[in-house]
Amino acid sequence: MPEIKLTYFDMRGRAEASRLALVVGEIPFEDERVVFDHWKEAKPKTPYAALPMLTVDGMQVAQSDAILRYCGKLAGLYPSDPLEAAKVDEVGGVIDDVTHAMYRYRGDDKDKLREERDKFSKVDVPRYVGALEKRLEAFGDGPWAVGGNMTIADLHICHLVTNIRCGMLDFVDKDLLEGYVRIVKSYSAVMEHPKVTEWYEKKPVKMFS
Amino acid sequence: MPEIKLTYFDMRGRAEASRLALVVGEIPFEDERVVFDHWKEAKPKTPYAALPMLTVDGMQVAQSDAILRYCGKLAGLYPSDPLEAAKVDEVGGVIDDVTHAMYRYRGDDKDKLREERDKFSKVDVPRYVGALEKRLEAFGDGPWAVGGNMTIADLHICHLVTNIRCGMLDFVDKDLLEGYVRIVKSYSAVMEHPKVTEWYEKKPVKMFS
Repeated sequence: MPEIKLTYFDMRGRAEASRLALVVGEIPFEDERVVFDHWKEAKPKTPYAALPMLTVDGMQVAQSDAILRYCGKLAGLYPSDPLEAAKVDEVGGVIDDVTHAMYRYRGDDKDKLREERDKFSKVDVPRYVGALEKRLEAFGDGPWAVGGNMTIADLHICHLVTNIRCGMLDFVDKDLLEGYVRIVKSYSAVMEHPKVTEWYEKKPVKMFS
Repeated sequence: MPEIKLTYFDMRGRAEASRLALVVGEIPFEDERVVFDHWKEAKPKTPYAALPMLTVDGMQVAQSDAILRYCGKLAGLYPSDPLEAAKVDEVGGVIDDVTHAMYRYRGDDKDKLREERDKFSKVDVPRYVGALEKRLEAFGDGPWAVGGNMTIADLHICHLVTNIRCGMLDFVDKDLLEGYVRIVKSYSAVMEHPKVTEWYEKKPVKMFS
């Protein structure tokens, strides 16, 4: 097994799905957390002046989706069958679409933010998450998103549901996703996994992004 | 080999990289092109009211990146080694970042579009494409982005370079990427591949997106 270090800020954000993949797969890794005061110094040493970054036997890998897929492969959470893997990647793609819609507006105008977040809740979520719910229903009864085992698709979903449920998003109802039963089922199955509950006992939840 | 249909509009856009993967891999497929007049009728039959869509032995796969990775696997354009595959996925992730920046503004205000496109050319491209250029240099001399053979990373790059070079983007110089030698090398290697040149003799380039 390669020597793995996952570098990110001391929050869940764009690294937590990869952390959980490694935790569930029982892959030993260094969970490096960069303090914001040190980020300015560390930033130019990353490939795209951004985190997360994975270091595998001294080699850097960047981009959160690439990191998650790599960790998922090591952990046995990414199907070897190409068509099953395509379903997993499809879920990841939709979650990316939803996340982009969630952060579409990044300015300081509170009224504009409220307007964009209303659109997110009333248009984007029904469009994307509603469609994803139907896809998961077609994929099977669950609890896992694709097939009979946890995959990184469940970790993508877990990331989205956590972001909404924690109530950190201004002008977004934290119950927004509760009606999507199949999606919540996948989220709950991840959160109830023994390795995941053990992880959150050691690493209390901090910030989200 | 499964029976494959790739459905998209009659343009390159978000399907062309997948088409090229299948073409290079000599995988037989139906290249279904939806006429805009028929789209309203076809739209609700797609998983996310969007194209491209792949149909594999009657099963639908959505999301362009999922489709491309699946086609890449069939065609032998996606490494089986997880770390090499992570490099390929990293390239795909950066190209996604650049593409999002390219289409950040979608309104009708021409002055605002010019402002956003200026920012794209002067800030986003140096940031993302400049960093990608350095990564590719570290990955090797090329011409291929990752390793000694074409991968879907080259097809991601080809899509970006084509979009800029064709001059379809308002307020973006079509020579914007020409200084990124390693990136242009990957693009050229795709465009000069015998299967690709043969393809464009049969399928003249139409629109881009």
